[in-house]
Amino acid sequence: MVKITFPDGSVREYEQGVTGYQIAESISPALARDVVSCGVNGVTTELNRPINEDASIALYRFDDEEGKHTFWHTSAHLLAEALQELYPGIQFGFGPAIENGFFYDVMPAEGQTISENDFPKIEKKMLELAKKNEPVIRRDVSKADAVKEFTADGQEYKVEHIVEDLEDGTISTYTQGHFTDLCRGPHLVSTGAIKAVKITSAAGAFWRGDAKREQMTRIYGITFPKKKMLDEYLVMLEEAKKRDHRKIGKEMELFMFSERVGKGLPIWLPKGTQLRLRLQDLLRRLLKPYNYQEVITPGIGGKNLYVTSGHYAHYGKDAFQPIHTPEEDEEYMLKPMNCPHHCEIYAYKPRSYKDLPLRIAEFGTVFRYEKSGELHGLTRVRTFTQDDAHIFVRPDQVKAEFENNIDIILKVFKTFGFDNYEAQISLRDPEDKEKYIGSDEVWEESEAAIKEACAEKGLNARVELGEAAFYGPKLDFMVKDAIGRRWQLGTIQVDYNLPNRFKLEYTAEDNSKKTPVMVHRAPFGSLERFTAVLIEHTAGHFPLWLTPDQVAILPISEKYNDYAQKVKAYFDAHDVRSIMDDRNEKIGRKIRDNELKRVPYMVIVGEKEAAEGLVSMRQQGGGEQATMTMEAFAERINNEVAEQLKELD
Amino acid sequence: MVKITFPDGSVREYEQGVTGYQIAESISPALARDVVSCGVNGVTTELNRPINEDASIALYRFDDEEGKHTFWHTSAHLLAEALQELYPGIQFGFGPAIENGFFYDVMPAEGQTISENDFPKIEKKMLELAKKNEPVIRRDVSKADAVKEFTADGQEYKVEHIVEDLEDGTISTYTQGHFTDLCRGPHLVSTGAIKAVKITSAAGAFWRGDAKREQMTRIYGITFPKKKMLDEYLVMLEEAKKRDHRKIGKEMELFMFSERVGKGLPIWLPKGTQLRLRLQDLLRRLLKPYNYQEVITPGIGGKNLYVTSGHYAHYGKDAFQPIHTPEEDEEYMLKPMNCPHHCEIYAYKPRSYKDLPLRIAEFGTVFRYEKSGELHGLTRVRTFTQDDAHIFVRPDQVKAEFENNIDIILKVFKTFGFDNYEAQISLRDPEDKEKYIGSDEVWEESEAAIKEACAEKGLNARVELGEAAFYGPKLDFMVKDAIGRRWQLGTIQVDYNLPNRFKLEYTAEDNSKKTPVMVHRAPFGSLERFTAVLIEHTAGHFPLWLTPDQVAILPISEKYNDYAQKVKAYFDAHDVRSIMDDRNEKIGRKIRDNELKRVPYMVIVGEKEAAEGLVSMRQQGGGEQATMTMEAFAERINNEVAEQLKELD
Repeated sequence: MVKITFPDGSVREYEQGVTGYQIAESISPALARDVVSCGVNGVTTELNRPINEDASIALYRFDDEEGKHTFWHTSAHLLAEALQELYPGIQFGFGPAIENGFFYDVMPAEGQTISENDFPKIEKKMLELAKKNEPVIRRDVSKADAVKEFTADGQEYKVEHIVEDLEDGTISTYTQGHFTDLCRGPHLVSTGAIKAVKITSAAGAFWRGDAKREQMTRIYGITFPKKKMLDEYLVMLEEAKKRDHRKIGKEMELFMFSERVGKGLPIWLPKGTQLRLRLQDLLRRLLKPYNYQEVITPGIGGKNLYVTSGHYAHYGKDAFQPIHTPEEDEEYMLKPMNCPHHCEIYAYKPRSYKDLPLRIAEFGTVFRYEKSGELHGLTRVRTFTQDDAHIFVRPDQVKAEFENNIDIILKVFKTFGFDNYEAQISLRDPEDKEKYIGSDEVWEESEAAIKEACAEKGLNARVELGEAAFYGPKLDFMVKDAIGRRWQLGTIQVDYNLPNRFKLEYTAEDNSKKTPVMVHRAPFGSLERFTAVLIEHTAGHFPLWLTPDQVAILPISEKYNDYAQKVKAYFDAHDVRSIMDDRNEKIGRKIRDNELKRVPYMVIVGEKEAAEGLVSMRQQGGGEQATMTMEAFAERINNEVAEQLKELD
Repeated sequence: MVKITFPDGSVREYEQGVTGYQIAESISPALARDVVSCGVNGVTTELNRPINEDASIALYRFDDEEGKHTFWHTSAHLLAEALQELYPGIQFGFGPAIENGFFYDVMPAEGQTISENDFPKIEKKMLELAKKNEPVIRRDVSKADAVKEFTADGQEYKVEHIVEDLEDGTISTYTQGHFTDLCRGPHLVSTGAIKAVKITSAAGAFWRGDAKREQMTRIYGITFPKKKMLDEYLVMLEEAKKRDHRKIGKEMELFMFSERVGKGLPIWLPKGTQLRLRLQDLLRRLLKPYNYQEVITPGIGGKNLYVTSGHYAHYGKDAFQPIHTPEEDEEYMLKPMNCPHHCEIYAYKPRSYKDLPLRIAEFGTVFRYEKSGELHGLTRVRTFTQDDAHIFVRPDQVKAEFENNIDIILKVFKTFGFDNYEAQISLRDPEDKEKYIGSDEVWEESEAAIKEACAEKGLNARVELGEAAFYGPKLDFMVKDAIGRRWQLGTIQVDYNLPNRFKLEYTAEDNSKKTPVMVHRAPFGSLERFTAVLIEHTAGHFPLWLTPDQVAILPISEKYNDYAQKVKAYFDAHDVRSIMDDRNEKIGRKIRDNELKRVPYMVIVGEKEAAEGLVSMRQQGGGEQATMTMEAFAERINNEVAEQLKELD
């Protein structure tokens, strides 16, 4: 018998050699139907692998990240199997599962191409093969045998990969039907679970990502265990296209990019700048009760600063290269992170235990090199501004800082309507303690502090072992947006490394010198990324307090422009942000245009309004309509803003 | 007879060959006594040079910049004459007039040195020689004769300079007593006007500024026509030392520098950041009525951006060198100015004449390489943030923008107590129009616009011909601080160049495409420089609205800490910025320490105050003392702040 421990801590006994699938069956038929793969002692594994020793187990459905990964990994093989039947002589490169589906890099035989027109044919073939519910069979073979086998199949890229990249010894292959792939797995037990298929796109991709090698065709797809799920996904994709922050950012004139300024370098236009400054003010307001001290540090730092911090050794080669000065022998780096600068601020004068926690905050602009092909709107950029802070604490103060920051992050989520969020605590791998810096004692103390802080704040956080950074444990937040996509937002991290590297210290109560612990944290992450997520979450319909223009004033004709100006002056004086649309256009056209600009309110003014000091209000999206005095309207706006921000205090 | 035109436009006739001195005599004995040199047709000239043709003349006293320059240039020769007598065999390098006095680079004979101990002896000798009132005699000699003469004198550096740097032809020398120098002049007519002398310092300096050549001794001095002026100058120097913004910045913890971050890269500490953000808010408030649109642009730009703007060709070699990306063939530059980025914003969509003026503002952080030896606190740095804006206008809108910006700049001066300021209009050199870009017509229009704007705003601006930049005329402001030093602050510049280089255009009323004019302007110049000037002007005693901490709360003993906390909470809730000094120290010590920190008010709380809800106020610098309720004190602070900012609206 073997003892199997479940995620909730319960333990059951099973016969030696039991499989994940049998365990699922023993729990419920529904689970047995849905289970996709399992985690045995933290390693994702096939459901038909026998378990011969005591172990912990987690059963993964498609809804779990690990389950999706297994499902899509097998789907990549299914794609390859279909392509092999449809395009004899096709060669395969790599075919991994990715965040949303999978891809396979392929090289069609001489004279053949694969394009969008072929997608239906491929989908059909994949479904046909899946229906056969072929078992996916793992075999362990020697490297020599693998070379022989793939050479016989004419798979040159696979052979190159085996010879050049893999170590000698046993290699695993997976076979379904007539298709065999070199693969570490794990996979579905059989392909029948794949019920819905969509080939989404094809693009060029260099073999091994090397621009000097052959260009292959990368075919992207996604699959689901239910047809309905694919339909929902396609609807979501359509909706996501409408919400694309790059499109809305252009329509609302929030930000721009310029070829001459450079790729991935966002320029915040006037309306975007207003929005950003308002986000910054919101954070300042949130931080006020906690005595954060805002600083401003330069955008570059001497190379030696990053040699000291260790960043240069890790990232220097892949970063923006050093900046030389013309006459002196100096090297500077574009600032990739703010922590080294903040360590220098900590170090500039002696600190006592009474000075801690010292909370140094900065809207710190950093630069990180990304390949131009990987840049994407405001979510993947080469410069961005973090809502950063570094908190220097005594070890016994870690818990309180996590509590404060959980409060701050949850207030941010509440204020922006991210009602659906998850938190993850990343701890050390208890089996591999040597790879972490810092003593057992401090790790145990701060890991306990994070768990306790979450418990006290009622935060139901998932605990992941082995996911901590080498320098300390952390707590991350993910939100689900209005159309169900997940975004990482908000992080709180413990750091034992930098204080040591910078030889930071404080005088303890007993007059000894001690090393402070550093806590990194950013509720937004970055202003760029947060703005992008917010655009996609709200489809550009920002909360009234935040939106650049709260009201558009629409005179019915030129005759009422003077009165419209009077209304605008009143709004200006009463904190209502308005724009004037006094173009010589029909009122219907003006309403349509301002709907498109996502201005939350329009007020229309004509003869009656001018005569009686009124405005005719019209809410965005064909909402409420009403006529009221301009005073009443301004009051309404101010009240609505106050209501939206009431979570903050 | 020759016609002599005076600066006020009046014309008088004199005999041909009349000298500047004779003209001064003809006006008044006082002028004849004080005149130092004269400007003939804009060229500074000796007073004894005959004028043989009709000319314009300006008579310079010591109080004029040009007069000081002549006076100190002759003083440099007087220093050399004294050194030649005191240190036989001494050799001379260069000896110019500078902003505050003059210096001479010298190489004492083998075995001799000149140090601080020698200064009194040198001063005495200079005064002794000056008393002789030796005439300063100009002679024009051939290059060959000059070489012969200086070789005979053993002046190797002078000979090297003649041979290597000077073109063939006539060279001028000036002789007083036994000392002859190679020099272009002009000089005083005789040395008797020099009545007070101070040798201020000595330092090493490489011959020709070349680190591979001999190190000479640079001796700095300053002279005055009256003993009293020197005394005042020395008092001012002492006062300036006390006001040094680097010293006060450290004492008040406003900013810091770090070797590891890098030279000339200021780090704004929490109190400095508060101050800076308050300065930014003030400017935003000032700009609000003028519809400026704030943007945020990245800190780097593609090299091509600066090739387009022309900055790369002009400054690229002497600037921070380009930043390369690791994998792609890209080059970026640290942003040296914001204008190219703002041109890209202008260009991102079509603009119509109705959209102009388009006022794009940014607190734009720029990077400019300066030699590390020339860096100085916050006034000479390698990165700084400009309170920048670029206004794109039609040519007929230039005047209105100058008027707006004169208003803004004068409001800034008034708010900060810079009551003593000068303005200078820099126009084209009418004799050399080819060196400027843009047509005669636009230059004439904008030069007239600037003059009219100044006139309408009652601004008595000095007009300087030939001081315009090649791309347009400008208006600069200088302030005199509390101890009489002049600082350049505030500038408004017309630019015809960049709109052309970026091919910017707008659709005119007649549907044709026209090029906008660009106006650069910065009321502060930069936040760093303005902060430095403000520290030196106020000696760190900032206006109440601006100062980081308005009140220090001083409990008399620990017994009253609770009450002090209550007072602090009340202040926090009523917009009074307070700090708590609850150290276990005597109240006298606390008062002294907070005086040093320049906190404008202290409130002392003890038994009586705690019992009755009072605070005992004590104004900084031993000013007013009074006891009042905490409510009354908070109101007083709020009223004082409102009074200080009333100029703004």
